[in-house]
Amino acid sequence: MSDIDVAMARALLLARRGPSSDPNPRVGCVVLDDAGEVVGEGWHEGAGSPHAEVAALARAGTAAHGGTAVVTLEPCGHTGRTGPCTAALITAGVARVVFARPDANPDAAGGAQRLRAAGIHVSQIEDLGLRTEADALVARWQQAQDLGRPVVTWKFASTLDGRGAAADGTSQWITGAPARQDVHDLRADADTILVGTGTAWTDDPRLTVRDRRGADRPQQPRRAVMGLRGLRPGSVLERTGATVLDTRCPHEALRRLWALGSRHVWLEGGATLAAVFWQARLVDHVVAYVAPAFLGLGAPAVADLGIGSIDAIARLRLDDVTRLGDDLRLMLTPTPDPTEGA
Amino acid sequence: MSDIDVAMARALLLARRGPSSDPNPRVGCVVLDDAGEVVGEGWHEGAGSPHAEVAALARAGTAAHGGTAVVTLEPCGHTGRTGPCTAALITAGVARVVFARPDANPDAAGGAQRLRAAGIHVSQIEDLGLRTEADALVARWQQAQDLGRPVVTWKFASTLDGRGAAADGTSQWITGAPARQDVHDLRADADTILVGTGTAWTDDPRLTVRDRRGADRPQQPRRAVMGLRGLRPGSVLERTGATVLDTRCPHEALRRLWALGSRHVWLEGGATLAAVFWQARLVDHVVAYVAPAFLGLGAPAVADLGIGSIDAIARLRLDDVTRLGDDLRLMLTPTPDPTEGA
Ligand SMILES: NC(=O)c1ccc[n+]([C@@H]2O[C@H](COP(=O)([O-])OP(=O)(O)OC[C@H]3O[C@@H](n4cnc5c(N)ncnc54)[C@H](OP(=O)(O)O)[C@@H]3O)[C@@H](O)[C@H]2O)c1
Ligand SMILES: NC(=O)c1ccc[n+]([C@@H]2O[C@H](COP(=O)([O-])OP(=O)(O)OC[C@H]3O[C@@H](n4cnc5c(N)ncnc54)[C@H](OP(=O)(O)O)[C@@H]3O)[C@@H](O)[C@H]2O)c1
Repeated sequence: MSDIDVAMARALLLARRGPSSDPNPRVGCVVLDDAGEVVGEGWHEGAGSPHAEVAALARAGTAAHGGTAVVTLEPCGHTGRTGPCTAALITAGVARVVFARPDANPDAAGGAQRLRAAGIHVSQIEDLGLRTEADALVARWQQAQDLGRPVVTWKFASTLDGRGAAADGTSQWITGAPARQDVHDLRADADTILVGTGTAWTDDPRLTVRDRRGADRPQQPRRAVMGLRGLRPGSVLERTGATVLDTRCPHEALRRLWALGSRHVWLEGGATLAAVFWQARLVDHVVAYVAPAFLGLGAPAVADLGIGSIDAIARLRLDDVTRLGDDLRLMLTPTPDPTEGA
Repeated sequence: MSDIDVAMARALLLARRGPSSDPNPRVGCVVLDDAGEVVGEGWHEGAGSPHAEVAALARAGTAAHGGTAVVTLEPCGHTGRTGPCTAALITAGVARVVFARPDANPDAAGGAQRLRAAGIHVSQIEDLGLRTEADALVARWQQAQDLGRPVVTWKFASTLDGRGAAADGTSQWITGAPARQDVHDLRADADTILVGTGTAWTDDPRLTVRDRRGADRPQQPRRAVMGLRGLRPGSVLERTGATVLDTRCPHEALRRLWALGSRHVWLEGGATLAAVFWQARLVDHVVAYVAPAFLGLGAPAVADLGIGSIDAIARLRLDDVTRLGDDLRLMLTPTPDPTEGA
């Protein structure tokens, strides 16, 4: 590994300290002086904080002059004007910039060009492993940019026979502790946890991300409840100021969440709300926790999706199967409707 | 590997040529002459055919005299009288018998003792791998002996949301070709394929074991239909002489099948009949083919099992998960009812 490769590996680590979902991508930056010594490190800490390059250059001070900035994402350029990162790099007088992933967003691309115009040597790192890592780091964020709306991941838990609750409505617990802990780990990857008013009024849930000891983690996604009823007075979500989406239109709900900065929504149900998103084709990923158990009767984990015949069956791509304790976690991606198009 | 080990490995291969489910266990035998050369091979070809030792000795003729019989299962002795195998070995004048698995059945054990009493040197093979293979060969048969009834394997296919058919009743096909071919491979491991009259009247199925090209395989399990309606006149099952179990009692049905020589029943549904066996605690194994797909509505693959609350949830042990094409195959074993006992 070259000095630059090592610095990039470090920049990737730093980037991970940022929030996994945010209006801005996760970026890390390491500044080397003209002798190749690390003189500054930075990462994007979330909306409102400085970009990674700006933070790293601030720490490097004058030592950045004639040095190299190693950054996970191409510094933002904004067509027609100089972005805050490129401006900071030019002002700091760095001689060279190495990035891992080009900026694919039309409104932010052009950073490399601007830097080159200012006489800075700009290149993409050669190492394909580091490039791949940099791509993965911003995959969800990039997907949201491409969609122009938050990415939606629908999570549900069910028995092998597709029940989300027993005949009398009891459902604690269908899956075991390892699966339930895994939900908290994956929730942390989203910026918004969304449920319907049905779930909110029935379960009075906290919807927080908890650690292995059950304590709330320091960083918490936004909690949102969708439906005309809004929040039940006195409920946990009301007392803790959850976001209310007083609409029944899923497009509108995502528009409002996007405006609030959301890029990845973790849809926890219930079955009614999930079916609404599914039928609007707004489900991008599905995470199913399946307990090797039968209930026979009880509320189905998946509601009416408007499918009448086997020809219209909704097929998904099975991306991953993992055992969590006694249970299975399936990661799936919906595939296009076979009865549609052409 | 010693000469004896090689002969045992060969005997295990021969045993597999026998029917996988039969009132008698699968057994293979290789006879070596006094110089250690193979002079006879035999296996049990199913009810009514000679036992493996008898077949192998017949082929060896006088060359067996002073030689060694290598046999996968301890030759049957029958308490109080000399079994056909031990008698044949004594008559043939073999000097030595090596077996891999002791006979655990009270009414057949004692073979080794009888042979020793006749001056024959008898031992169990040392190699643990060969012993394990010999155990696996007769596992289902042994389980049936222990239960005193045929082993029941319940197979069903469903979507991830537990549907066995779409809202309009269509169900061809929920799973893909690899999963459907696998059903034929596993059907071949049973001696009886059982369905309810509901499935028989609705689907008019063939219930045969087919090869990869769709042709019937030479060996076919018995096909049985359970219910008071019996067979629909003119149906495939009626024309091809399927067994009718004109009862609604699953214990009685298994008793009749046992009397017909059945030791492993492959229960293919429908959901009504499967629930009857489940509630009578007569399901020993479950094979679930799960398609990564949703139907939302439609007939559940698993019917009412008499479970009212989450405390009474029917948990199963997940023994194996395998991907077959796009689908998953889960092999499961029911666990004792948590609300029962103590
Ligand atoms: N197994 C699991 O993974 C899981 C997960 C979550 C919940 N649950 C269980 O599911 C149950 C609640 O599920 P649920 O399906 O009744 O409630 P839900 O999906 O949480 O909420 C349904 C409500 O959402 C509102 N809504 C918003 N947009 C809508 C639209 N386009 N169409 C229809 N309704 C819309 C409606 O209320 P308004 O009248 O207020 O608009 C509706 O009554 C609870 O018992 C909970 O414990 C299970
Ligand atoms: N997804 C799958 O894996 C799968 C597998 C098989 C079938 N299927 C589908 O399932 C449907 C048929 O299922 P089904 O549940 O209606 O029929 P079923 O379980 O095949 O048969 C039900 C019938 O069995 C008889 N029966 C015997 N003992 C009984 C008892 N103790 N209690 C109640 N009934 C007893 C009754 O008929 P009598 O009046 O004659 O006694 C009853 O109507 C078909 O459409 C078929 O395509 C799906």
